[in-house]
Amino acid sequence: MFDKKIYQERRRKLREKVGKGVILFIGNDECGMNYEDNTYPYRQDSSFLYFFGQPYAGLNAVIDIDNDREIIFGDELSIDHIVWMGNQPTIHEKAELAGISDTRPAADLKGYLNKAKASGQQIHYLPPYRDAHRIRLWELLDVKPGEEQPSVDLIKAVVDLRNHKQPEEIEEIEKACRVTADMHIEATKVLRVGMRECEVSAALEAVAQANGCALSFPTIATVNGQTLHNHYHGNLVKEGDMLLVDAGAETPEGYAGDMSSTICAGKKFTDRQRLIYDLQVASHLAAVSDLRPGKPFVEVYEHAAEVICDGLKGLGIMKGDPKEAVKAGAHAMFFPCGLGHMMGMDVHDMENLGEVWVGYDGKPKSTQFGRKSLRLARPLEEGFVLTIEPGVYFIPELIDYWGSEKRFADFIDYNELNKWRDFGGIRNEEDYLITADGARLLGKKIPLKAEEVEALR
Amino acid sequence: MFDKKIYQERRRKLREKVGKGVILFIGNDECGMNYEDNTYPYRQDSSFLYFFGQPYAGLNAVIDIDNDREIIFGDELSIDHIVWMGNQPTIHEKAELAGISDTRPAADLKGYLNKAKASGQQIHYLPPYRDAHRIRLWELLDVKPGEEQPSVDLIKAVVDLRNHKQPEEIEEIEKACRVTADMHIEATKVLRVGMRECEVSAALEAVAQANGCALSFPTIATVNGQTLHNHYHGNLVKEGDMLLVDAGAETPEGYAGDMSSTICAGKKFTDRQRLIYDLQVASHLAAVSDLRPGKPFVEVYEHAAEVICDGLKGLGIMKGDPKEAVKAGAHAMFFPCGLGHMMGMDVHDMENLGEVWVGYDGKPKSTQFGRKSLRLARPLEEGFVLTIEPGVYFIPELIDYWGSEKRFADFIDYNELNKWRDFGGIRNEEDYLITADGARLLGKKIPLKAEEVEALR
Repeated sequence: MFDKKIYQERRRKLREKVGKGVILFIGNDECGMNYEDNTYPYRQDSSFLYFFGQPYAGLNAVIDIDNDREIIFGDELSIDHIVWMGNQPTIHEKAELAGISDTRPAADLKGYLNKAKASGQQIHYLPPYRDAHRIRLWELLDVKPGEEQPSVDLIKAVVDLRNHKQPEEIEEIEKACRVTADMHIEATKVLRVGMRECEVSAALEAVAQANGCALSFPTIATVNGQTLHNHYHGNLVKEGDMLLVDAGAETPEGYAGDMSSTICAGKKFTDRQRLIYDLQVASHLAAVSDLRPGKPFVEVYEHAAEVICDGLKGLGIMKGDPKEAVKAGAHAMFFPCGLGHMMGMDVHDMENLGEVWVGYDGKPKSTQFGRKSLRLARPLEEGFVLTIEPGVYFIPELIDYWGSEKRFADFIDYNELNKWRDFGGIRNEEDYLITADGARLLGKKIPLKAEEVEALR
Repeated sequence: MFDKKIYQERRRKLREKVGKGVILFIGNDECGMNYEDNTYPYRQDSSFLYFFGQPYAGLNAVIDIDNDREIIFGDELSIDHIVWMGNQPTIHEKAELAGISDTRPAADLKGYLNKAKASGQQIHYLPPYRDAHRIRLWELLDVKPGEEQPSVDLIKAVVDLRNHKQPEEIEEIEKACRVTADMHIEATKVLRVGMRECEVSAALEAVAQANGCALSFPTIATVNGQTLHNHYHGNLVKEGDMLLVDAGAETPEGYAGDMSSTICAGKKFTDRQRLIYDLQVASHLAAVSDLRPGKPFVEVYEHAAEVICDGLKGLGIMKGDPKEAVKAGAHAMFFPCGLGHMMGMDVHDMENLGEVWVGYDGKPKSTQFGRKSLRLARPLEEGFVLTIEPGVYFIPELIDYWGSEKRFADFIDYNELNKWRDFGGIRNEEDYLITADGARLLGKKIPLKAEEVEALR
């Protein structure tokens, strides 16, 4: 946990932004895997962590702005729990570390909220993303699952605070990024032809764990890089393959790193691989060079996409004007995802609060295939932390689907494209902080250019 | 997946045992960690896996005994899904592998169940253990969370089938146990004074993952072995410490291994550690020698506990008659948990169906501290798979709590005991199959006797 003053200041700003009413924060409980007590690794809700710093199950909290009260609700451990789970500080002691002196039994929360409702106070809460939240909201506020009405005022206030990273947060993100970089460097070193993907993921995840970190998201380590979120790790790595690794560490404070590497299975990339690999790097560096406060991220995305279209045109796979191709959406055949996303306590920061608030400042998203997957489009501001991760993918299913209807035939040469259909996919990814006059790479540098990868093989 | 005949035969037996009505199996969905799409590693419900073999989210199934129908309900992937998650066989193709030809869209399930209810059919379902199940039951059957009425007929039928492991299951459990043994052997080899606990857990979990396995439960790797389920891995291992490791692998088919080791931080255990270590081993071997069909497991537990009491009496920590001490419950100061549990597709097999059905054949459990934590008490039968894991623990909080009221002062010498209060805890654990005339160790042998541990240090 940070110093208690940090949590107090965060809550003070939140109260100021929301203005009035009662804010209810639902903490995360344990979640059973195949029976109730065989739990997944515990993860507290990020906003709960941000404002209260308590990484424990079984807690809820209330900020009653109108009555100037901050309360944590939860029950103390029994001797049975202590025998099984070890001794812990009391809830009161834990709460004091976040500058909260008012703690009450879990059972008192419903009564508190009922009273607030009865006296006409608005109850603000964030969108539920676990079924446990939905059941809790039903129990506490009599709101049926699916009929929740999260508070937009609260969402906007939380997003505004969490989007602008403070020095202590940047330090934590740097820690996560250093471990994340070590995970990728380890993967780049250990990969050998004949290994199974899971041997590489085992090695890189061990780096996170040995550093006392969790994973910030499920690891991707795949020879089928064209599948964007491929979690199967059972393939053998063969000569001529590339292994796409997307993985990150999460510090005990709950801050994430998120990087990607594409590693040649042999000592060097093939000439054909280099053509696409270098194109990804060019697109990547073009995007990085754009980063500065005031720059709309959608323009950075378009720039990165145009570089890809231009390069593919040079290979005869695309044709026509790259700018026009990107405007029409033809680039999404090769780059069907976003360029990057906010990163903080969540790897896709605050995705549960709605991308429109986090990455679009409330403006509507595009519905165009590809462009609709942009998680971030708004003008950048100092203190934002984000990923840069353009990719070039050859997705056989998409080639066949678009090809069957000759979609964007003005921009895509399907005959040429079909010669590349089994190429796979390439992505590299780094994490940046937007500074007063540009951007700064977070954590340790990982290999980006092909020569840098090959130097570690 | 096994051959489709195996799933067909399992379902045939289930229909026969349950007799009539409609059986509803709710499959597990993905579960979000800190936002909906940042999911924990997917785990299908074990009974769903057992009868349908489908390790995929988004499925439910029905066995309509009265109308002789077996149906899997679920929706096909969209092109968006395929781009992000990769291509998959259709639901129909997947279902065929389990011998099911009737597949229908997810939205049709509610109508099917409504019709069944309207025509007077009983809907059988198992107890929910995730909030997602509770919400699903609410949506499908209009049963409010907390008001579910699981079918005892169904529970008894499923328990009877899953408690008796078939040859193909034993083979899978052996696989899990071999990997589990390798995890413990690795931990025993890599541990060094000055390491953090998480470095050891990282190394042993990497063994599971590199073998294509998941973890069957959250790893324990702690210098505070007296805390039975300690998941904190941040301590430094110091000279003179012991590291208690409790960890296991789960095969892709969903079968578990579960073993424990207690490893000396240095090359050898201290003399004082040996006194308690050898006592655990004596208790362990006594329990193993009892294993055979017909033997009530509660008697094996009592035997193991008596050996511990007898040994502690020799050290002056306990007094009186060991048998009487165990009857009274005084042994639970040192051995407050059970001796072992059923193991199969769940590491505590079918814990979600109720221990009373799995381990007590419907008979009531004791309420005595310690004895109430026995997960298994019933007479053993051929085909049962279970763990053997007696432990000797010195729990300061429990010593103070019982000591303050001089509980069991006829059996416990609190003056002597207080000299051991910081000793820690020791547990070793192996997995056994009950055979026609005894029991067989599953998987590879791991170090049990102190000399065997020291030989790997």
